[in-house]
Amino acid sequence: MKIYDATLAPNPRRLRIFVAEKGLNIPNEQVDIFAGKNRTPEFLKKNPAGGLPVLELDDGTCIAESVAIARYLEALNPEPNLFGRNPREQADIEMWSRRMELSLFGPIGRAFQNTNPMFATRIKQFQDYGAAQLETAKRQLEWLDGQLASKEFIAGSRYTMADIHALTAIIFGQQTLDLRLDPALKNLTRWHQSVSGRPSAKA
Amino acid sequence: MKIYDATLAPNPRRLRIFVAEKGLNIPNEQVDIFAGKNRTPEFLKKNPAGGLPVLELDDGTCIAESVAIARYLEALNPEPNLFGRNPREQADIEMWSRRMELSLFGPIGRAFQNTNPMFATRIKQFQDYGAAQLETAKRQLEWLDGQLASKEFIAGSRYTMADIHALTAIIFGQQTLDLRLDPALKNLTRWHQSVSGRPSAKA
Repeated sequence: MKIYDATLAPNPRRLRIFVAEKGLNIPNEQVDIFAGKNRTPEFLKKNPAGGLPVLELDDGTCIAESVAIARYLEALNPEPNLFGRNPREQADIEMWSRRMELSLFGPIGRAFQNTNPMFATRIKQFQDYGAAQLETAKRQLEWLDGQLASKEFIAGSRYTMADIHALTAIIFGQQTLDLRLDPALKNLTRWHQSVSGRPSAKA
Repeated sequence: MKIYDATLAPNPRRLRIFVAEKGLNIPNEQVDIFAGKNRTPEFLKKNPAGGLPVLELDDGTCIAESVAIARYLEALNPEPNLFGRNPREQADIEMWSRRMELSLFGPIGRAFQNTNPMFATRIKQFQDYGAAQLETAKRQLEWLDGQLASKEFIAGSRYTMADIHALTAIIFGQQTLDLRLDPALKNLTRWHQSVSGRPSAKA
């Protein structure tokens, strides 16, 4: 199998962190998204939605969407477990993954797309909306700090896919929006130092 | 167990359709979101994010987020299967569920929140952004029509969670944004008539 990747983009990073945590070695091919190589007819055969990452299997078929690929890889390589070992833990990890993706990564991504000059020629930008989304993301981080008062990781007592979602969002915010974690958010800072110290954080 | 529900909101509807497809009977308690009853200290103990639906278990603990609850219920009640029977099918259903949620439901929800008077007192609205999001949703429906040329359901040859995501998004668009499916989108129209004819569509 092979992963089509783009180093700077957040969705491929989410998968790279996951693959690193699993200890897997999967060949990787860079796709130049700045040159639109993910929108060519050839690439759209692999993923008609045009996004990255994409996992190409040995039979030539493809799976797109970072979390779909991650679930597939976890089914083939159960340990270390990142999606939950029983129905209740699976539900808690999914709940927290959704909160991190929909309410933290989402606003950060929309702030980036609506304010960054890179997107000015690709989409109609709404600068004021983008600025408001950044504030929404900051409020979500404050909320998350409170939630982390009673637990070590996002979904509970161990590192899971939910931490990968949160870390991916924060890295993307730091890289593109100069989003800084307020040191006054002590629980969030403690969590962030912990997960950033794992080798996978540099994937 | 008990589900905290809100009839008109889309996330609870996604779970109701799922529960109906599974043939489950789970007691249901309405929460008046218009009166902010999902933001009371008591409710925030059940779901600190304040959203609906929430599944309360017999031990008093809760699971929030429609898809987390649906996965939990599928683990306890495997048939009829809606999340996939093997790793590849699970990945395909997740891929298509994400496309439908992130690229169809997302724009419809943001169009609603940024244009509907109901939200004028709850969030800062960006009317132009909301209007643009509605156009994004319409383009996504055109894309989906092309994708449905070669298959009966969203993720392939059978009804799955991905269909529930798409139908929930379209129902919400129809109810709140007067989103109409263009009859020229013949594949989409055929799919929509098929899934709308299932008893679960009225859940």
